[in-house]
Amino acid sequence: LSQNITIAVDAMGGDHGPSVTVPASLRLLRETPELQIILVGSESVIQSLVSGREGEFGARLRVQNATQIVEMDERPQDALRKKKDSSMRVAIDLVKSAEAQACVSAGNTGALMATARFVLKTLPGVDRPAILSRIPAHHGFTYMLDLGANADCTPEQLFQFAVMGSVVAADIDGVSRPRVGLLNIGEEDMKGNERVQQAAKYLSASPLNYIGFVEGNDIFSDEVDVVVTDGFTGNVALKTIEGVAKMIGGMLREELTRSSIRKLGALASQPALTEFKRRLDPRGYNGASMVGLAGVVIKSHGNADEYSFGNAIRVGLIEARKGVATEISKLLSQGQVA
Amino acid sequence: LSQNITIAVDAMGGDHGPSVTVPASLRLLRETPELQIILVGSESVIQSLVSGREGEFGARLRVQNATQIVEMDERPQDALRKKKDSSMRVAIDLVKSAEAQACVSAGNTGALMATARFVLKTLPGVDRPAILSRIPAHHGFTYMLDLGANADCTPEQLFQFAVMGSVVAADIDGVSRPRVGLLNIGEEDMKGNERVQQAAKYLSASPLNYIGFVEGNDIFSDEVDVVVTDGFTGNVALKTIEGVAKMIGGMLREELTRSSIRKLGALASQPALTEFKRRLDPRGYNGASMVGLAGVVIKSHGNADEYSFGNAIRVGLIEARKGVATEISKLLSQGQVA
Repeated sequence: LSQNITIAVDAMGGDHGPSVTVPASLRLLRETPELQIILVGSESVIQSLVSGREGEFGARLRVQNATQIVEMDERPQDALRKKKDSSMRVAIDLVKSAEAQACVSAGNTGALMATARFVLKTLPGVDRPAILSRIPAHHGFTYMLDLGANADCTPEQLFQFAVMGSVVAADIDGVSRPRVGLLNIGEEDMKGNERVQQAAKYLSASPLNYIGFVEGNDIFSDEVDVVVTDGFTGNVALKTIEGVAKMIGGMLREELTRSSIRKLGALASQPALTEFKRRLDPRGYNGASMVGLAGVVIKSHGNADEYSFGNAIRVGLIEARKGVATEISKLLSQGQVA
Repeated sequence: LSQNITIAVDAMGGDHGPSVTVPASLRLLRETPELQIILVGSESVIQSLVSGREGEFGARLRVQNATQIVEMDERPQDALRKKKDSSMRVAIDLVKSAEAQACVSAGNTGALMATARFVLKTLPGVDRPAILSRIPAHHGFTYMLDLGANADCTPEQLFQFAVMGSVVAADIDGVSRPRVGLLNIGEEDMKGNERVQQAAKYLSASPLNYIGFVEGNDIFSDEVDVVVTDGFTGNVALKTIEGVAKMIGGMLREELTRSSIRKLGALASQPALTEFKRRLDPRGYNGASMVGLAGVVIKSHGNADEYSFGNAIRVGLIEARKGVATEISKLLSQGQVA
């Protein structure tokens, strides 16, 4: 028995706009009978891309006109002040008015966060929302946050991130008593700066399943489920992961195609290499959650293609279904965590 | 015409101690006629491993007895206070007394840094030394610092790191006007925290070839030679790189050996895969420099094997030859950089 979920899609956001967001939405509607989508943006542009498919989905597909677009390099405060009829803003408004249970956007990250905070507000007990994503690890996934919303964080904020990450890991992927690690530059108690030292004290005293400090390499190990860090370090780590994966992929390709003989040899490993490539494909992990808001907001990579953006919609669908925001709020306001 | 260089090797340091450091030293002596090595540590242990080779190297190989060993998990201040006859301390003392032009150790990083600062002092104009390493990038190397010596850094320190990294890149690998980037969570001017904002101002006003903010993925691009960051972020990024590379290597192996047919197929790509593995082998990049000290101190990975530790000795040899410390000192004290 599945509950109907409505997702507001910022159809104009991202590097490719409606040419990606509309087909991705139609694909998801086809796959998921309980899904309803409101495509938000220029009605004429969206209609021309939807054209002919209205009958297929009936009331499950709606278009909501919005006359403005937030640019990818626009200052968040400018977007918030001057773009009150942007596709991004209207999509978030639909979550606020409860016409949608989640919003998905590939638009400007800073503007999305600022607008979502302004419209939806943060949950009681949360100082600042954070960006959380699933990171591929050797035996599944690691949940990591903050990935860039807050360059500087207090120990209290790091603690709140741990609670939020723990709830998401438990509710979304059913991880039982998620192991929470605090990212640091050594595993010994005395290492790091005052910020992580103090956050470690809060975590040790909490009912969370806190396992202590972890290091950069532990993100990919099977020893931790939730990795907590400030938005500066988290963003650098995330981009570093992307950079290394791309470089290694490039090196492998170079070596396998260096000569005709090597190219021929690589053919014999095609199934293995295809599967390897699929496992590393960042498009498979697209869709970061802005946690700590009173509503589900999912950020897709700006350069997402149809497959990738579809995965971001899927993340929104799951979070909306599980009521993650309500769960975080409940635990933080009760002072009773995970 | 090559100048003779003497390197003091902390023979007892690292996870494997003399069983790695002694054979690695002998190998390097064989390869490099202008190299002289002083093996520092338990004379009896070292002599038993050297035994029979003394004649081969004559005066180029010396053993200097030291009765203590710094443990890998010992507190830096304890090592400094209580281990005045440790192999690590005596090796650094040999640099201080100019009997050696560089010291190489696989021992406790914190203790090595604290002892080196105490014995050798920092260069004029340098607040704190930093750990610098070459990171494999798509088209060669990127020099990155600080990799963990200073969890918190001031803008002034970040600026000094940029100067030191620039000198090393120029002097060691002959990079002409090294492009210096400041690690941040976005490339736009307004991004990041006050620390990087202020450091960016110093860098823009300096004669360094400062190219602006770079992100985690840029470390591996061909657009930057020196990546500057605080020791917290740098250490997390470094360990993250190691973790991703290990995970990706593991995934590739898994896919290539999932079945007998796949194993057979992979045989056809053996030369390509071997070369790929070699390029990613972290042992090939072993040897981080502790820059900003009045002397050359090289930190090897604790778990280095003979091949890997040999590379750390090579880094010491090159830095001693090039007189990097003198060069940094000259530029910083003249206020005239790169």
